[in-house]
Amino acid sequence: MKSYKEMDQNELLTMKAALEEKYKEEQAKGLKLNMARGKPGASQLDLAMGMLDVVNSASDMRTVLGNDTRNYGDIDGIGECRRLMADMLEVEKDNIIVYGNSSLNIMYDRVSHSMTHGVAGSTPWCKLDNVKFLCPVPGYDRHFRITEYFGIEMINIPMNEDGPDMDLVEEYVNNDDSVKGIWCVPKYSNPTGISYSDEVVRRFANLKPAANDFRIYWDNAYCIHHLYDDKQDEILNILKECEKAGNPDMVYMFGSTSKITFPGAGISALAASFDNVDRIKKQLSIQTIGHDKINQLRHARFFGNIDNLKAYMKKHAELLRPKFEAVLDAFDRDLEGLEVGSWVKPHGGYFISFNALPGCAKKIVAMCKDAGVVLTGAGATYPYGKDPLDSNIRIAPSFPTTEEMQKAAEIFTLCVRIVSLDYYLNQ
Amino acid sequence: MKSYKEMDQNELLTMKAALEEKYKEEQAKGLKLNMARGKPGASQLDLAMGMLDVVNSASDMRTVLGNDTRNYGDIDGIGECRRLMADMLEVEKDNIIVYGNSSLNIMYDRVSHSMTHGVAGSTPWCKLDNVKFLCPVPGYDRHFRITEYFGIEMINIPMNEDGPDMDLVEEYVNNDDSVKGIWCVPKYSNPTGISYSDEVVRRFANLKPAANDFRIYWDNAYCIHHLYDDKQDEILNILKECEKAGNPDMVYMFGSTSKITFPGAGISALAASFDNVDRIKKQLSIQTIGHDKINQLRHARFFGNIDNLKAYMKKHAELLRPKFEAVLDAFDRDLEGLEVGSWVKPHGGYFISFNALPGCAKKIVAMCKDAGVVLTGAGATYPYGKDPLDSNIRIAPSFPTTEEMQKAAEIFTLCVRIVSLDYYLNQ
Repeated sequence: MKSYKEMDQNELLTMKAALEEKYKEEQAKGLKLNMARGKPGASQLDLAMGMLDVVNSASDMRTVLGNDTRNYGDIDGIGECRRLMADMLEVEKDNIIVYGNSSLNIMYDRVSHSMTHGVAGSTPWCKLDNVKFLCPVPGYDRHFRITEYFGIEMINIPMNEDGPDMDLVEEYVNNDDSVKGIWCVPKYSNPTGISYSDEVVRRFANLKPAANDFRIYWDNAYCIHHLYDDKQDEILNILKECEKAGNPDMVYMFGSTSKITFPGAGISALAASFDNVDRIKKQLSIQTIGHDKINQLRHARFFGNIDNLKAYMKKHAELLRPKFEAVLDAFDRDLEGLEVGSWVKPHGGYFISFNALPGCAKKIVAMCKDAGVVLTGAGATYPYGKDPLDSNIRIAPSFPTTEEMQKAAEIFTLCVRIVSLDYYLNQ
Repeated sequence: MKSYKEMDQNELLTMKAALEEKYKEEQAKGLKLNMARGKPGASQLDLAMGMLDVVNSASDMRTVLGNDTRNYGDIDGIGECRRLMADMLEVEKDNIIVYGNSSLNIMYDRVSHSMTHGVAGSTPWCKLDNVKFLCPVPGYDRHFRITEYFGIEMINIPMNEDGPDMDLVEEYVNNDDSVKGIWCVPKYSNPTGISYSDEVVRRFANLKPAANDFRIYWDNAYCIHHLYDDKQDEILNILKECEKAGNPDMVYMFGSTSKITFPGAGISALAASFDNVDRIKKQLSIQTIGHDKINQLRHARFFGNIDNLKAYMKKHAELLRPKFEAVLDAFDRDLEGLEVGSWVKPHGGYFISFNALPGCAKKIVAMCKDAGVVLTGAGATYPYGKDPLDSNIRIAPSFPTTEEMQKAAEIFTLCVRIVSLDYYLNQ
């Protein structure tokens, strides 16, 4: 296919007229599809329904250690669940605190607590004039909204194909003591889908922060969320690497079963060094008497062990793969060679990231919306909602059915083409 | 029985020798009883086991409005659960946000958020030199630990038989703009068991705070937790009274099912004015994507409506009443007329509060412990753990069986008598 870049004005105009005709037809169909958020589809949720039966009125409600999950206690989570989450995040059981249903809430709490109490005895951030976070971009909008909410200055760090630009990360972290954190989704990154290389993880672990209360906020949201049996990303374990590098306390890792069992009714966990865990448990004992241990028991008994959990994730992959491929196939079919943007084919996670031509993202998202396809707002993947190039669009293929996804992808590529034609017409 | 106060030295010494003999016998039995925390007993937890069956793999997981409880959404809680909690707290559905499993966590979050963001646009408390909370005493230790943790200065307010000393409350709140809150357990108060009179509630609602970010933290933990059918306390609704008084935003009310279904696996709620609810929902959308809606569904379907919920509470009363009466009967039998302390006979809630002679509480708690009966630490019911008179002891009768409670109460009254005899011997 001839690239749009190589077309002359006439060719561009002819092509545009044809595609606009097609767009009008699509619009007339009155579709309603939502690819805005990384919500699991109903068929994925069906996989977990059996979990609602494993704890019932006839169940022994005691943990392996004999604690009654129905009553107060076990503030760091029941043992069997800490084991499961430890195995999932590839850390020791004593590195783990199991929380409630939301890892986002753990991250919010960590930042909030640092504002009021500092980190491991440091000055509370609310007493400082400048507090900064590094934000690899594009990234997860909800991370950025937390730091924005607390008035923390966010600094964009470009994402390369193997992770954040580590030269820049090192420059900031090692020299500026107002840099207190960095948001990372190291595996099947939200939204780019890439995973951090071993070198990137090691460079993270070997940072020499100017601020002793600097922490890496390592959101391992998609740690076992592969799409393929034969193409799986693996990343180095940041906790172990930090330990090796003499920086054991420098990282907080987060994980959850929100995209394994039920979003909103899963369990979440924080993994950190023993010292960090001790400190956080003390603070937690002020905040709550404990999290929902019956739901922890449900998870522990439903999965039994990490092998079953990993086997279970293959069922998710089977449901998700066709949806991802529907999008990627449409990109290959409709966009390849046109010079209208770039994308990565992820091996896992929940997103496909599309980089449109500069200045085109908002227009594409708006056109899609007018044809009934709702995408994450353009700019959302950047701090303050501002994508300097207006280029990145996050596509969340999980919620619609495969058929719907095919339809939506068709409309998406149509809009990309029309907006890109305009881009070249205005060059 | 002759009061110890009226006894001469010889009588006191003779009595003491006899009781000490008895104490040694008790000690030799090697009992292990825990009355430290307001933990429901196993028989109470059994009442809720049916709730684990009402949502299972065969269930329709949608709310009345058709939302899938298994997926993200409904950040303020599912409609049917907001209805149930609204009816329980006697407010409108739109006054309610349903949270996760812990009302203590909601309170912590409210205080924490006020530290970082202020209240409804006020200066963040972390930017102020002085922030104070009023603490009716004796009160709930976990309330006090939250404010202590945030470095908020706590001021003791004496509890009368109809609630806090309102003259003092008014004097502080209406004149000192560093007073930002007051902790209240208005019904079957923790630990005194008393309920606030209508006049006290009205005086609360008619406060004219010097600080516009002053809030009443109204922990309605025992709102439907009656012990008797024929003796039930009712209190005026603070939200409605505040509205009438032109102070609609001045109160946050909290409630939960921790002592209805399962502690740790129940649901909690905040009730506040529509404006407060709007503000808090916005903040909440930064903190989490939502709470556990499947557990909300479980609660809503298990109870169906408030009438069933209230009927269900009678079963709790039947289990709790004999335990409370075991303590109160022992007090009447062993302590009445001796002038060794005072107590209230509560109509509901989870505690019996015993006021020993000045300087005797710690000794009594220590003696009980040495005979195998663990009580809440003396002083815990006061800010900073400091009871100025060393007098108040909180007894939590719910967790032991009735037989254990009879035994524990016997040891308790024995220790009270021995320590009181010493008190009079040293006068």
